[in-house]
Amino acid sequence: MAYRMSVKVLKDFILRSTQAQILMVIEDIHPADLLDAVRDYPKNKLDILNKLPEWAIASIIDEAEDDEKYELLALFESSNKQKDIVEEMSSDELADMLGTLDTSEANDILAKMDKEDAEDVRELLSYAPDTAGGLMASEFLSVKDTMTVKDTLDYLRTSAEDAETSYFIYILDEGNRLKGVVSLRDLLIASSDIYVSEIMNANINTIKDDMDQEEVAHIFRKYSYHIMPVINSAEEMVGIITIDDVIRVIESESTEDIHHLAGLQEDEKVTDTLKESVGSRLPWLFIKLLTALLACAAVARFQGTIEKLVLLAAFIPVVSGIGDNVGNQTLTIIVRGIGSGDLNFQNYKKVLLKEIGVGICSGVIMGSIIAICGFLWTRNVLFGVVVLVSMIVNLIIAACSGFIVPMILKRLRKDPALASTIFVNAITEVFGFIFYLGFATLLIPYLE
Amino acid sequence: MAYRMSVKVLKDFILRSTQAQILMVIEDIHPADLLDAVRDYPKNKLDILNKLPEWAIASIIDEAEDDEKYELLALFESSNKQKDIVEEMSSDELADMLGTLDTSEANDILAKMDKEDAEDVRELLSYAPDTAGGLMASEFLSVKDTMTVKDTLDYLRTSAEDAETSYFIYILDEGNRLKGVVSLRDLLIASSDIYVSEIMNANINTIKDDMDQEEVAHIFRKYSYHIMPVINSAEEMVGIITIDDVIRVIESESTEDIHHLAGLQEDEKVTDTLKESVGSRLPWLFIKLLTALLACAAVARFQGTIEKLVLLAAFIPVVSGIGDNVGNQTLTIIVRGIGSGDLNFQNYKKVLLKEIGVGICSGVIMGSIIAICGFLWTRNVLFGVVVLVSMIVNLIIAACSGFIVPMILKRLRKDPALASTIFVNAITEVFGFIFYLGFATLLIPYLE
Repeated sequence: MAYRMSVKVLKDFILRSTQAQILMVIEDIHPADLLDAVRDYPKNKLDILNKLPEWAIASIIDEAEDDEKYELLALFESSNKQKDIVEEMSSDELADMLGTLDTSEANDILAKMDKEDAEDVRELLSYAPDTAGGLMASEFLSVKDTMTVKDTLDYLRTSAEDAETSYFIYILDEGNRLKGVVSLRDLLIASSDIYVSEIMNANINTIKDDMDQEEVAHIFRKYSYHIMPVINSAEEMVGIITIDDVIRVIESESTEDIHHLAGLQEDEKVTDTLKESVGSRLPWLFIKLLTALLACAAVARFQGTIEKLVLLAAFIPVVSGIGDNVGNQTLTIIVRGIGSGDLNFQNYKKVLLKEIGVGICSGVIMGSIIAICGFLWTRNVLFGVVVLVSMIVNLIIAACSGFIVPMILKRLRKDPALASTIFVNAITEVFGFIFYLGFATLLIPYLE
Repeated sequence: MAYRMSVKVLKDFILRSTQAQILMVIEDIHPADLLDAVRDYPKNKLDILNKLPEWAIASIIDEAEDDEKYELLALFESSNKQKDIVEEMSSDELADMLGTLDTSEANDILAKMDKEDAEDVRELLSYAPDTAGGLMASEFLSVKDTMTVKDTLDYLRTSAEDAETSYFIYILDEGNRLKGVVSLRDLLIASSDIYVSEIMNANINTIKDDMDQEEVAHIFRKYSYHIMPVINSAEEMVGIITIDDVIRVIESESTEDIHHLAGLQEDEKVTDTLKESVGSRLPWLFIKLLTALLACAAVARFQGTIEKLVLLAAFIPVVSGIGDNVGNQTLTIIVRGIGSGDLNFQNYKKVLLKEIGVGICSGVIMGSIIAICGFLWTRNVLFGVVVLVSMIVNLIIAACSGFIVPMILKRLRKDPALASTIFVNAITEVFGFIFYLGFATLLIPYLE
């Protein structure tokens, strides 16, 4: 039943068909699939795009990534064609596109638009991209609270083609302040001569236009909303946010966490070029290098001890490896706990104590095993003791730094995941090595 | 305008008000907020729940986590009350709850239900929880293709209260096969005496009931759908999936990636107990321990060389630290690339070459800096050469293993993130140490 073609079939179909043939089916092809076909076509993309009507090109650009939108639009040399396409784009995607351009380029495009549409987009552009205003679209269905059910249904029948969705109709007063909402279903059930204000739901959860996008995502998640109205500081309704926009926020938050924990920029992609990848990863590697040289200096400080018992050097990777692992486990749990709100002012002490507990338990268990290995190797009980105690101390340090580093970053209003793996590992290794080799130095007369 | 109370205010309001007072406002309070109030109440939760109507209790249980649902339901000792609540729950949440119970407990609850509802839930229970069937709800609006627009509108006016959403009405033939879909808006615009089949959109994207939930999430994301119909192998429509269910899938996928990369179980939470956390992390630490002992053995193999030049030991943390970092960067990019579909059969060779390129570039840059440090320390050019060459080789190994380990896991149909950090670091360290110390051993006459 479903009418989905593979990218290749779709591409070939467009290239080989006449415009008339394409027009007959184009409404049944999802713009996301059309975008795939365009992306997958290695030659001049106009070969495909020129066969499509303006509204379809606009919907393809709507689907594209922010920095890809203008590349597609700029393919068309005719200023009139660009104008026609831009007029069919949705306001939020257009604003996202203009956000990637210089002011002069953006103004060129705004100048091509209807005054009213340009005004809408200018308003969207005035919002920071990571706020509710930056996420919302201006196209929504609204009626005045003085309208009847019949007026509203007539309005819906005859106009309002543009709206992002028609699930809900918002009721505004004469000052555009949001008074309530009705669903199409409510309208159907109501008798036609009463005012919409009599059947509207006046108890609406709204989003303030300057709300941070992570907070927006949190509200959508918690209440399972699909659409929410956005109001400005004057309580005027200025737009709607739909859940598909929120999904992108949720995904980019997770990607940011994962990337920052691994020492990557949040926007690096597997398809980036070598130059882009090296450029974006090197800064993190430099930080890692500095911390690694610190660890190196910590070990070098105990050259004399290692000279007397070289086997101590062999256990360096064990001390740092297990320590890093425990530190990363705690760090990840804490970063995600901060992100989800599960870690908060009420429970942070309890969580810290638990993580220290995990460090002690892991230290005793792992330390005992390593101590036995060390003893079997050296046949010296004291060597086992050094390894056991060092491992316990090391894992307590790992757990504490895995907890404290993201909490400090959070307090500094930075992303708790930002380079935190590097810092946590550095703290664990430097103090871990100092304790391990320092303790061995004290006991070296009995270890040799 | 929005009517949101803090958890504390809401809790106090319910505890202090009469049932009649609560009934007047309960429709305006979101069940997610009610659930927060219940969760936040330390004493007998029936103090709150007994003041609410059954449908509100059902909606609270619908909102709760899977393993929390039955705990709440079981608070009610009266079997009739339980029955009334269960009847108001939505089929998909009910199935999720029953999925957490023993067969006998689940059958007890099914026996309390209407035959037809019980049948619906039994059918949902027959699906694996990570498939489309396990995600979907059975409540949707449908009409037969022989109905007119007027019939359909009348049907919507008089019944169909239960449906999860009323945005779309699905058109089925006499065999319950999905023929098309209309929106309420389409119905409003159409003249009332034509058949719905004349105005329906017959070109619907559907989901097969046995589709993996990650694939479902991928389709929702790509096409920005809010709702999709689910069909079985006989092409009968069996349910709908809404985007809020998909968000949970997307979030759990990301959490799985992040947790697996850090060596954590996917379901560990910051609020887990000490015992739970230790239990879930130890298996990963044991694997890490084994690999760390391998690295230890690799170093121990070169005791003689280290004895002659103890400073070699000091650079062990540098070799492993930078290597681990580069390995983790590649690994994370590859894991996310596999998850998003950006890494595929077309481009994997190109990506591998790029990652090796990143390894070489990073190796040359980092290695040069470390080599200079090493030279300044030892005043021996050859020591610098050993460090430089080792670093380049080490980072190529890191990049390759960061690429190959997740690809192998993917090929074995495992999660590409599963313990892969541990394996990548182990490969990098073991081979890195062997090369570094082996190369130093060859040159030791000129290094001392």
